[in-house]
Amino acid sequence: MTPAKKKSVRKKKATAKPTAKRKKAAPKKAAPKATRKSAPRTIATADSMARQQREISVSEFFTKNRHLLGFDSPTKALLTTIKEAVDNSLDACEEAGILPDLTVEIKLIAENRYKVIVQDNGPGIVREQIPRIFGKLLYGSKFHRLRQSRGQQGIGISAAGMYGQLTTGKPVEIESRINKRKPAQYFQLVIDTLKNEPVIKREREVEWDAAHGTRVSIELEGTYKRGKHGVEAYLRQTALANPHVDLTYQGPGEEPVHFERASKDLPEEALEIKPHPYGVEVGMLLRMMKETKSRQLKGFFQSEFSRVGPKAATSIIEGTGLQNTTSPRRVVPEKAELLVKNIRKTRIPAPPTDCLSPIGEERLLASLRQQIPGAGYYEAVTRPPSVYRGNPFQIEVGLAYGGGIAGDELTTLMRFANRVPLQYQQGACATFKAVMATNWRSYGIQQSRGALPTAPMTLMVHIASVWVPFTSESKEAVASYDEIIKEMKLALQESGRKLGRYIRRGQRERDEAKKRAYIEKYIPHIGIALQEILGLSEAQEKKVVDTLTDTLERSRKM
Amino acid sequence: MTPAKKKSVRKKKATAKPTAKRKKAAPKKAAPKATRKSAPRTIATADSMARQQREISVSEFFTKNRHLLGFDSPTKALLTTIKEAVDNSLDACEEAGILPDLTVEIKLIAENRYKVIVQDNGPGIVREQIPRIFGKLLYGSKFHRLRQSRGQQGIGISAAGMYGQLTTGKPVEIESRINKRKPAQYFQLVIDTLKNEPVIKREREVEWDAAHGTRVSIELEGTYKRGKHGVEAYLRQTALANPHVDLTYQGPGEEPVHFERASKDLPEEALEIKPHPYGVEVGMLLRMMKETKSRQLKGFFQSEFSRVGPKAATSIIEGTGLQNTTSPRRVVPEKAELLVKNIRKTRIPAPPTDCLSPIGEERLLASLRQQIPGAGYYEAVTRPPSVYRGNPFQIEVGLAYGGGIAGDELTTLMRFANRVPLQYQQGACATFKAVMATNWRSYGIQQSRGALPTAPMTLMVHIASVWVPFTSESKEAVASYDEIIKEMKLALQESGRKLGRYIRRGQRERDEAKKRAYIEKYIPHIGIALQEILGLSEAQEKKVVDTLTDTLERSRKM
Repeated sequence: MTPAKKKSVRKKKATAKPTAKRKKAAPKKAAPKATRKSAPRTIATADSMARQQREISVSEFFTKNRHLLGFDSPTKALLTTIKEAVDNSLDACEEAGILPDLTVEIKLIAENRYKVIVQDNGPGIVREQIPRIFGKLLYGSKFHRLRQSRGQQGIGISAAGMYGQLTTGKPVEIESRINKRKPAQYFQLVIDTLKNEPVIKREREVEWDAAHGTRVSIELEGTYKRGKHGVEAYLRQTALANPHVDLTYQGPGEEPVHFERASKDLPEEALEIKPHPYGVEVGMLLRMMKETKSRQLKGFFQSEFSRVGPKAATSIIEGTGLQNTTSPRRVVPEKAELLVKNIRKTRIPAPPTDCLSPIGEERLLASLRQQIPGAGYYEAVTRPPSVYRGNPFQIEVGLAYGGGIAGDELTTLMRFANRVPLQYQQGACATFKAVMATNWRSYGIQQSRGALPTAPMTLMVHIASVWVPFTSESKEAVASYDEIIKEMKLALQESGRKLGRYIRRGQRERDEAKKRAYIEKYIPHIGIALQEILGLSEAQEKKVVDTLTDTLERSRKM
Repeated sequence: MTPAKKKSVRKKKATAKPTAKRKKAAPKKAAPKATRKSAPRTIATADSMARQQREISVSEFFTKNRHLLGFDSPTKALLTTIKEAVDNSLDACEEAGILPDLTVEIKLIAENRYKVIVQDNGPGIVREQIPRIFGKLLYGSKFHRLRQSRGQQGIGISAAGMYGQLTTGKPVEIESRINKRKPAQYFQLVIDTLKNEPVIKREREVEWDAAHGTRVSIELEGTYKRGKHGVEAYLRQTALANPHVDLTYQGPGEEPVHFERASKDLPEEALEIKPHPYGVEVGMLLRMMKETKSRQLKGFFQSEFSRVGPKAATSIIEGTGLQNTTSPRRVVPEKAELLVKNIRKTRIPAPPTDCLSPIGEERLLASLRQQIPGAGYYEAVTRPPSVYRGNPFQIEVGLAYGGGIAGDELTTLMRFANRVPLQYQQGACATFKAVMATNWRSYGIQQSRGALPTAPMTLMVHIASVWVPFTSESKEAVASYDEIIKEMKLALQESGRKLGRYIRRGQRERDEAKKRAYIEKYIPHIGIALQEILGLSEAQEKKVVDTLTDTLERSRKM
């Protein structure tokens, strides 16, 4: 646009009422007023601005911020949709104690348009819940519980449906059956994005051959890519971190791929826990005291927190001027502050760790050997559980080095959170920062400033937690809490030290060979050059070469 | 916890009813059932899971996910609080055509507890709006408008208040006055996080010496740090990207710092625009057609989109089976798809760019010279506006190189979005990715694989847009849309090429000198060594040295 045109556009606006006072009479539009010589400026007032204030529904917010949910490119949109559906299926199966059988299918509908169909043998979803689970953001069963699970926000699958609806106008389709005695339910749903509420387009009972399970179909605009960041690679990593899953995948126009179940054991059950007092702050405590069913403060601490016995509860209350029998609802903010201070002074055991279900060193090693065959060295470390903001978490690191892995590339980093592979935003991830902050040189591995180590190495880092702090709703990277980075570094250092010993053993031998090779390669040329310059005889040349070689060999050994 | 203890905890749970069938009779608790020999497992069913389903309020969501808003560490929390308040003040002043006078104060209240006070001379906020603006997430005036502004989400300042409330239990305090004829209003507010609604703790009229303005005070747990990532450094960068701002800062127990106004011109006004048709998708179009006041399709396209004239509107409708006079509300999804296809085939001019207000090459250069004095070379590039997903945006790059800047460190990257400095999450930012993806070697600058260029260089990258796509609600990094990365790379390449010419000029001279120095340094030693080995005379030695020097000089020049 040329400056002349621009000016004329602004002039047009400037024909409205000229002063703020007059504007009051016609409050529909903020009146412009010339403040600069050249361009008339639209001047807002507190009143005109107040009229612009509006509530933003969470679905409007995420429609505009779809990249926060992992829908910023057509390739990612397709993968995210599958990821959300698979996460839900696996969580549901495990919660119901069912060994998961999953099928994932992608059908090409038209150019850049696909239908994603994910089906499981899970417990199914009761009819009344289906619309909200698939047609409302921020609705779910996992947010309010402290328990290790893949989903936690109540956003993922409905966001995938919303993305499909936005790009194609098509509703989400769901079929679900909860047991043999009941028929399967079929739904077509869209989200009313202005209200963040589901709208049922169709609903009926349908035939279903299995006794229980759920099937979700979403049509969306997307791009299908193969390779390292493709759907198949993602599902392969999922199968590796979840050896108890049987998964069949059919890409558009491709042969089906079957990832067979490698273990018939479900992962150790992750139990639900209460919050740990060390993670509580004044505001949170005030809210908990308002909502509790406990009538006495002492009972409140014992029943609403993990690891608080009668002694700890008494010690928390002591010296605050409150009594063990005080009603929690009556505690004012100033007293709550004193309680929090006392909590931090009271010795309370670490939270129980049976809420966590790590992969385990043995399975991690097995996965590595399967995923990266032919490496020269494998290593796996599972750290003991730790705590950030009162939330238990546990770090695992796996490592494959050398052998068949190519030599002078940057290290490959594979990231997992609660057994879910993380595919994007590596640079923003705590795992990445922990790898960067580890001193790899001291283990005999090269590393440029600000880069991953340069080594024939694949690193796997897994965080298991009752609440993984992701850097965005798309759950692509883990936020950098100090406690988490610290544990990751400890795990990396532990595996690094072991790797260092392996490398140094080999390094000494290779160094010897390499230096010898250099001397053998270059000395004869120097001999020939000197022979020409000085006109040496062959015997003289040989003597020079031998003497130089000898000198250099000796200096090399020093 | 020892395995033995763990087992006993689980056993306790296992005393409930044993099968899924019986559980129906007592539906309050999911019944556990032994699936593995050793550990009894809690088995959920569709029914027990349905009872866990709950709605999650957006304030609950962000309480648990506070790192998404920039409150993951006490240091960041303090800075984010100031950032949100300052952003709001600057937006309000500019919208009202007022040259901003800001004061920012941080008071130490107790150990790790501060009070942040930000005051502006803006238009003030009308009484009725104060509670929702400061006490409700997802409420604001900027989300629904396509217009360049610092704030856009309606989350920031209320999130800062919520964080204060969570960590200290204290309400947010607001004073605001809209003009001389009305008294100032004072509020104390907290958020009911379960409902995401403001609760007014106190409200009264107060004395206020200025005619208009707003003052917000938030008490919070935080850590105060000086230096590169400190508050003062942040405000200094803010002043640099906003030369029209006068800002006084007083840190805890520090002398006040005054950033004087460098320019009395407000930035070029950024006008509000309509969405561009190229950014519209089927779902969005359907919603717009449902909400429009236009009664005819042709008028709808002309009035609801930017750059659509009668000809383009007709061409969009043609061949879909719809008429120019069809009511937009009657268009079904299948027809909307055809309309979107036609939009993509129709030639429509790029969106107007008077919605953008870049810093400009001259001001950018001036800022660089002020911020990084003593560099050997300065460069600034403002790209022409471009579009992603229908949203206009514009990239600017500034560069300072050599001279007083230290030599072998990684390049310093300064990032800005709509004139706001971005301090965290560099690795996740499109600016960072664009810098990494630029081939700096071809401009004579070293770069390790996967790292920023190693050079005495500071890069500034600014994106101005009606809607900056941030990677999280904390607005710390720009999402990597292809169109944005592309424009950033073009800007970086343009400045890189110019820098390359500057470097090569200097490089040739330095290379000459360096090589000559090497030859002068080493050849005499080789001469002496050869003299000893071969028993050469001094004359012979001189001849060898001369010949070698000559040969090397010649090869150097090739």
